[in-house]
Amino acid sequence: SFVPITSYLKDNKEIKNECDIKKMIHCIKVGISLVLVSLLYILNPLFDQVGENAMWAIMTVVVIFESSAGATLGKGINRGIGTIVGGGIGCLAAILAQNIGGVGNSIFIATSVYIIGSMATYFRLVPKIKNRYDYGVVVFMLTFNLVVVSGSRPGVKVWEVARERLLTILMGFIVCICVSLFVFPMWASDELHYSILSTFQDLANTIQGCLEECSKSVKEKENQADASFTICKSVLNSKSKDESLANFAKWEPWHGKFGFSYPWEKYLKIGEVLRELAALILALESCIRASKKPTSCWKSSKTVQFEQCEAIGSRLVWTLREIGDNMKQMKKCEEVDSIMAKLKSTREELSLVISTSMIAEFENGEVLAIASLVFLLMEVVEKVEELVKEVKE
Amino acid sequence: SFVPITSYLKDNKEIKNECDIKKMIHCIKVGISLVLVSLLYILNPLFDQVGENAMWAIMTVVVIFESSAGATLGKGINRGIGTIVGGGIGCLAAILAQNIGGVGNSIFIATSVYIIGSMATYFRLVPKIKNRYDYGVVVFMLTFNLVVVSGSRPGVKVWEVARERLLTILMGFIVCICVSLFVFPMWASDELHYSILSTFQDLANTIQGCLEECSKSVKEKENQADASFTICKSVLNSKSKDESLANFAKWEPWHGKFGFSYPWEKYLKIGEVLRELAALILALESCIRASKKPTSCWKSSKTVQFEQCEAIGSRLVWTLREIGDNMKQMKKCEEVDSIMAKLKSTREELSLVISTSMIAEFENGEVLAIASLVFLLMEVVEKVEELVKEVKE
Repeated sequence: SFVPITSYLKDNKEIKNECDIKKMIHCIKVGISLVLVSLLYILNPLFDQVGENAMWAIMTVVVIFESSAGATLGKGINRGIGTIVGGGIGCLAAILAQNIGGVGNSIFIATSVYIIGSMATYFRLVPKIKNRYDYGVVVFMLTFNLVVVSGSRPGVKVWEVARERLLTILMGFIVCICVSLFVFPMWASDELHYSILSTFQDLANTIQGCLEECSKSVKEKENQADASFTICKSVLNSKSKDESLANFAKWEPWHGKFGFSYPWEKYLKIGEVLRELAALILALESCIRASKKPTSCWKSSKTVQFEQCEAIGSRLVWTLREIGDNMKQMKKCEEVDSIMAKLKSTREELSLVISTSMIAEFENGEVLAIASLVFLLMEVVEKVEELVKEVKE
Repeated sequence: SFVPITSYLKDNKEIKNECDIKKMIHCIKVGISLVLVSLLYILNPLFDQVGENAMWAIMTVVVIFESSAGATLGKGINRGIGTIVGGGIGCLAAILAQNIGGVGNSIFIATSVYIIGSMATYFRLVPKIKNRYDYGVVVFMLTFNLVVVSGSRPGVKVWEVARERLLTILMGFIVCICVSLFVFPMWASDELHYSILSTFQDLANTIQGCLEECSKSVKEKENQADASFTICKSVLNSKSKDESLANFAKWEPWHGKFGFSYPWEKYLKIGEVLRELAALILALESCIRASKKPTSCWKSSKTVQFEQCEAIGSRLVWTLREIGDNMKQMKKCEEVDSIMAKLKSTREELSLVISTSMIAEFENGEVLAIASLVFLLMEVVEKVEELVKEVKE
């Protein structure tokens, strides 16, 4: 009933190759956008139109081009809004300052720089703003300062400078968005979707690996344990990555199979449950390693119905893969109810696996490990039930 | 023997207040640096010297000023080196292009922009470079492009532009560093140190909370469980934060109690073990919640020597706090050997807590939960041993 682990490793290699290709495509895209935007400088008719301000277009491309479409779009919009708001307030402050004149002018400018700078920095420290609008606030600060101080020089037409800069930034933004969205687009939403799906598969493989390990001798165990250990740990550490991907995915327009206002929050919740599951599996592994004899000894003694344990394990593996596949095809799981019913009966079976009256045959340490194994399996089943519920929605 | 949990909550509030004060100081520092650097524009004699290039000084301050000294220093150095290298290569390319002349000029520039842009983007995707030098590579790309395309305009003295910009960036950098290092400096190394220390305390408190919960009725349990749950989870998710702090800490010069080349890697390793411990405690909690009766029932039955469990738990709590305090005072733990010996004997005691012959009195589900509880406690003891070893070094 088990798909051999080697096929999983092959998959892994393919994923790595695909990842490399994506990286190369991203590099080429950045190169193309940079050349396009440099044409503003290189071609004389264009340069005559925009002049030195073309610099801002180049800067925009270098700074906002990120590997996923959502990140680029998010940064671009942040930059645009930051520039407009910062420029607007900066212009007002500069005009006010010019009206004051004399020493009051300088004092007014210094004060406004101080107040706006401190306030904006404070906003950057608020977690909610930091997550989505950090870059926008930085650009706001930057634009405000540049506009207000250059407005302090006599003879500078503030409005004109601001307008021209905004235009060139817009050009850079358009180049970025076109290249990012229309040339082999890479969506953060796809990446998040597949990373969650592969977590399902990884955890299923880990449980399977655990069960296989059970029937091995001590020496063989030690080699494999580390591999599944690292998988669980990488799942545990996936939170920040998932969150930033979900953040970018929210910026992305309708595309492919994801509609507008697709429930990305749900993905984060599923990710949370998956992480809890990984923590349980980690504890499960330590149980298996703690029981020093191969489980063949258990089998012979018939105290623990080990075949049943194995059957339950493979049912868990199957369930995880099934939910993962269902999510892949984005269809509502029709079999959810039957899966839930199965899981419930599984849990009841598990509690009968150990017959307490016969447990006394074992050594003390062994008993504890076996009992914990069974208990943790029950907990795993419960978590999987929770997962099924989440996915159903 | 237990310090009441309320004192811990009070501590927590104090920490929050301290955090707020730090934020305010940071905001004020940013405001001061911005005003200082704006003086380049506002004061006429200074403006006559630097001219329009003062813009770059402002940009530098806005972009590199981060909340910890290490982050600011790291970003500043990255920006400096990126500007110098990018400017140098850009100048060479621009001079080469001017020698070619004609249409070849434009083609040469476009090609070099494309190649350098793609290559630099590729470097940004390499994890090791991304972690420490990401910003430097961005600045390198930016400077190279600006220099090479502005060099393409006839009559522009490339060297002079590059030199002036570098000087103003240097000014911005100096302002940032002075304000960041000499006005209420905030060190990433301190933050990492205290965050690891507080993790010790948090986990100790959680174990203590678990043990206290044992003796409560079901209803009371549900309220508190969530609180300790979130602590464990936040410990589990601390990896990326710790890593970035360690990254910044490496940039920081000698200060306070930390010498040069302080072993920050060690902190990351300790953090790793702490996370594993947190995963175990999470499993432990689910055991406690699974046993539906208050443990007073266990006590009366005398099958499980619950007093002993409690004693062992409080010894664990004591050990964790002890190691944490030792780390706080940065002294080599002299008592490590005695702590280790105690932990070892603790483990042996634990394996005798349950007498298998009498376990049959319980219901099936209860047995599993109790056995798991004891087993997981043993695992926790083992992890703590590992921790003691790490801290000793």
